[in-house]
Amino acid sequence: MSELRWDPLKKSWVIITSEQGRRPRDFIQPRERITMEACPFCRGREEKTPPEVFAIRPQGSIPDGPDWKVRVIPNKYPALRIEGNLEKRGKGLYDTMNGIGAHEIIVETPDHDRSMSELSAAQITDVLRAYRARLLDLRRDPRFRYVFIFKNHGAEAGSTIAHSHSQLIALPVTPPHVATELTACREYYERKERCLLCDILHQELADGVRIVRDDGDFVVFAPYASAFPFELRLLTRRHGHDFALLGDRDLAALADALKDTLVRLRSVLRDPPFNFVLHNAPPMHLRLGKPGYWGSIPYDYHWHIELIPRLTKIAGFEWGTGFYMNPTPPEDAARFLREADTSGVFR
Amino acid sequence: MSELRWDPLKKSWVIITSEQGRRPRDFIQPRERITMEACPFCRGREEKTPPEVFAIRPQGSIPDGPDWKVRVIPNKYPALRIEGNLEKRGKGLYDTMNGIGAHEIIVETPDHDRSMSELSAAQITDVLRAYRARLLDLRRDPRFRYVFIFKNHGAEAGSTIAHSHSQLIALPVTPPHVATELTACREYYERKERCLLCDILHQELADGVRIVRDDGDFVVFAPYASAFPFELRLLTRRHGHDFALLGDRDLAALADALKDTLVRLRSVLRDPPFNFVLHNAPPMHLRLGKPGYWGSIPYDYHWHIELIPRLTKIAGFEWGTGFYMNPTPPEDAARFLREADTSGVFR
Repeated sequence: MSELRWDPLKKSWVIITSEQGRRPRDFIQPRERITMEACPFCRGREEKTPPEVFAIRPQGSIPDGPDWKVRVIPNKYPALRIEGNLEKRGKGLYDTMNGIGAHEIIVETPDHDRSMSELSAAQITDVLRAYRARLLDLRRDPRFRYVFIFKNHGAEAGSTIAHSHSQLIALPVTPPHVATELTACREYYERKERCLLCDILHQELADGVRIVRDDGDFVVFAPYASAFPFELRLLTRRHGHDFALLGDRDLAALADALKDTLVRLRSVLRDPPFNFVLHNAPPMHLRLGKPGYWGSIPYDYHWHIELIPRLTKIAGFEWGTGFYMNPTPPEDAARFLREADTSGVFR
Repeated sequence: MSELRWDPLKKSWVIITSEQGRRPRDFIQPRERITMEACPFCRGREEKTPPEVFAIRPQGSIPDGPDWKVRVIPNKYPALRIEGNLEKRGKGLYDTMNGIGAHEIIVETPDHDRSMSELSAAQITDVLRAYRARLLDLRRDPRFRYVFIFKNHGAEAGSTIAHSHSQLIALPVTPPHVATELTACREYYERKERCLLCDILHQELADGVRIVRDDGDFVVFAPYASAFPFELRLLTRRHGHDFALLGDRDLAALADALKDTLVRLRSVLRDPPFNFVLHNAPPMHLRLGKPGYWGSIPYDYHWHIELIPRLTKIAGFEWGTGFYMNPTPPEDAARFLREADTSGVFR
């Protein structure tokens, strides 16, 4: 029997169609390959990209020289441009604004052939340090309402360059999905004076069946109302609204959790295409005093990472309704990932 | 320069990234083929499907016999089941209900090899008559909040059976995208005492640049804030909230408009994969007296068809933010489709 489940964070119903009960082997298929003649992200091709805005390099190393570990560059073909003032206009019935923003690439490694799951935890820590540095820098720009960090892995997940990288887009408006989460958390806090995501975490830890891993600092679980097979959320056990407040030791622990999760996915689903996104409190939220502040810790948002392997197609039903049908119950997905044999996978 | 545009119907911003300016030839690529041994939708294989719930057949023809033009059958592997009472429960923090609903297939032709754009306008009229008949029947069931009709064409658009068909899903909750549109139209009506979609239509007719075709009854245009390249909306010029109130002559005119639109897409984009969805006022809306009723015609919703060719991939940005980036301005898309040479395409 199918079941509808409500996601209190996304404020939407999901249909879990368990009779079809799709297992990992149903999703394993040849992956589309991305080919490119001369990769601009490789070590030694630094002049092929715009000058770097941030890098992790040995002390004394020269900007845009080859001696880097992580490199952040403006996108050569940006969706939004950083120059200019934000201009808003009406056009008859319609509203428009010019495309002011920032679009940056975080190149995660100089090595073309290593995907994120194959990087060392120390290297992933450096990637997370780059995220933090760019968040802290760009949130100071008052034109930007939100700084969004995400990763596309594999052609099916929308990646067009095989060399492992993440992206950052700073936006002049708060994204609708983030706004929905902020509203859900705010409403929950106003009613209960508790953080919605802390309560979700407690519920998940009590239920147990959807937990993939829990190292005491970071918990990875398949959400109760997963919209996609093997969808995952990564949450800090300790409440926190702002990823950028993490210290270096927190980032190292997060890198461990992220790497372990990616290795499990790689093992169970054979290097699936995936997207992950960082959902953080928006700068506006950080600047203004809002409900839920308790000392310096706002209790009405809880930063987290959301990850979806891209295993199913989005068709007319999903697009026209906003509902999702998920053929793999999250309890099954979590069990497969919890019990994953990762011994054969490069760690 | 990129531009952000607000969609007053979807209540969301879209990023038109015109510097990339992608044209039809950028989207033409080999289409994935769907193969299947014995198609259950072909004439003569009626026993391979559950018994039909509706069909268009010559008078005196026997149900589930081979002599049909359009045939509606329950989905053999339904996402939601029609039997039982709707049961809603809480589970700790979470909410669930059982998957009550209907999931039907509208087989559009007995001929395996004809896609919808290759059917005659008379045959498409019969398909639309089947839509109308099923809407009128299923909306009487008080368990269903919404009856959703859609079509997936091509593997990239989520179709798994090549034989041309549409689908219907009756749902126990109003879909979020429909709810957003209903709210947008309601709010607009309450403020202005006019229909939002009628006003959009007037704006489009005044601007002209996004119109694909206009036969006096039905207008097809690329929306101002198109989220996808070559996205289209089909609207009745005369206000109407309910597709099921169309008479046979209206359906014949709609079939002409739909066929012409599909033929244009086929010509310009070489048989692109696509989804279309019918957005109609929900049964609840039809049963209750709501704001915007004027005589028997509610002015706070306007039924329409939305169509997207599936030419781009949904990546982490779209999925994590709810924003869309569209590399083809709708003004360009409309011009290509308006000027389409359809002489070489089967009409």
